[in-house]
Amino acid sequence: MGNPRRFFVTVAYDGTAFQGWQVQPGARTVQSEIESSLARVSRGKPTRVHASGRTDTGVHARGQVVHFDSPRGDFDAPTWRRALNGVLPHDIRAMEVREVPPGFHARFSALHKEYRYFVHTGEVMPPDLRHTRLHEPRPLDVKTMSEACGLLRGEHDFTSFSAVRGHPGENGTRTLHEFTLREDAGGFCFLAVANGFLYKMVRQLVGALLRVGRGELAVADIARLLAEPARTPATVTAPPQGLFLWRVTYPEFPPCPR
Amino acid sequence: MGNPRRFFVTVAYDGTAFQGWQVQPGARTVQSEIESSLARVSRGKPTRVHASGRTDTGVHARGQVVHFDSPRGDFDAPTWRRALNGVLPHDIRAMEVREVPPGFHARFSALHKEYRYFVHTGEVMPPDLRHTRLHEPRPLDVKTMSEACGLLRGEHDFTSFSAVRGHPGENGTRTLHEFTLREDAGGFCFLAVANGFLYKMVRQLVGALLRVGRGELAVADIARLLAEPARTPATVTAPPQGLFLWRVTYPEFPPCPR
Repeated sequence: MGNPRRFFVTVAYDGTAFQGWQVQPGARTVQSEIESSLARVSRGKPTRVHASGRTDTGVHARGQVVHFDSPRGDFDAPTWRRALNGVLPHDIRAMEVREVPPGFHARFSALHKEYRYFVHTGEVMPPDLRHTRLHEPRPLDVKTMSEACGLLRGEHDFTSFSAVRGHPGENGTRTLHEFTLREDAGGFCFLAVANGFLYKMVRQLVGALLRVGRGELAVADIARLLAEPARTPATVTAPPQGLFLWRVTYPEFPPCPR
Repeated sequence: MGNPRRFFVTVAYDGTAFQGWQVQPGARTVQSEIESSLARVSRGKPTRVHASGRTDTGVHARGQVVHFDSPRGDFDAPTWRRALNGVLPHDIRAMEVREVPPGFHARFSALHKEYRYFVHTGEVMPPDLRHTRLHEPRPLDVKTMSEACGLLRGEHDFTSFSAVRGHPGENGTRTLHEFTLREDAGGFCFLAVANGFLYKMVRQLVGALLRVGRGELAVADIARLLAEPARTPATVTAPPQGLFLWRVTYPEFPPCPR
């Protein structure tokens, strides 16, 4: 018997009713729902899934990526997708399944990640958008916000834009390949692509940028936060419901041996 | 004491958790929630609201319009909007409030209505869209669908595209000013503007068009359904969750005397 086959699954979820990604006793999490679904399909065999990274309570995904080593040697990628979507709850879907060589890892093989954060700027929030948009009806200086985005792009120590938790002494240097504002129906979205993100970094960046937009922080303040990396109360964490893990990029996989 | 002041309210709602518009004993409906909210603001005074028309269970609105005669002579339009949004449940919002002359009526003064019906055509439905889109992953012949849309535009007897209920003997002639397919992220949307719609007409039109797109009905079948108005099982009612009452248009209101 050879090694188990490994699969990458692109997973989308509506984060509204989840307490984030990671398995926790007594909590409904995305990881525990996916693992229960795998166990159902493989008649109770426990299977661990590994994600490209965690997402927090209330954060959504259009393109989270997870891998698992298949508990069923007879299943190929299309069979897994069908089987998973047959048992997963309606707020999680397997968008795409691909078989990958055993060395590939959803987290460690990732090249970069893209997040999108949606903001509705109308005076009142249309209720059908309330779980997937931040509402910011106050006037925003978009030109100055774009200028601050430009300053943040590139390689920097982003410690000033991360939340106090988890990884003291972690190297805070990341490369923000893209950080832009895009128009979106009824408002705009922030698009952020990096080789990695610190804990709550996207929501901290968005929180800081919205303060810039409202005139509460100057572009010079952003420059100072970058030049003097430290955790500071100057930034705020934007709420989770506007945030989507949109896409994770990997190197081209060599074709699978089977 | 003069007549009560009359207000038009543009109302948006997420139809997911409502059993439609109209007050019914024991059901959570949009009308009953708005009337309860008005009663709360006016210390228990019962006030009836009149809509431009009903919407069915699960149908959403971005721009339903309702009117009511104000139980509070001291409230102007901005005060009403603030007060209503303070007490309405989160799945209903008062988007805009305007004071109108007493002769104006949300239903009888309406010139035309716009509905939008959203369809996601990707292979798997992103879960954050599942309450606001129809999922149609089968291939669709968009060119033939557009041709059929063109045939339906204009003044016709639309009885073949209405559901059996309510109004036997009702004149089925309406003018469909606009009926088009528009690209939308991940799929498309039908946009329908008419001087009025028969019961379930938009969902019947969409149901018929999707059958055309899948090759189950020909453009000639649509022509025949228009030429021989009758209720027929040839069309199907598309499910409610893709449908939004988007906008209701009224004549320019003369400025209010007060």
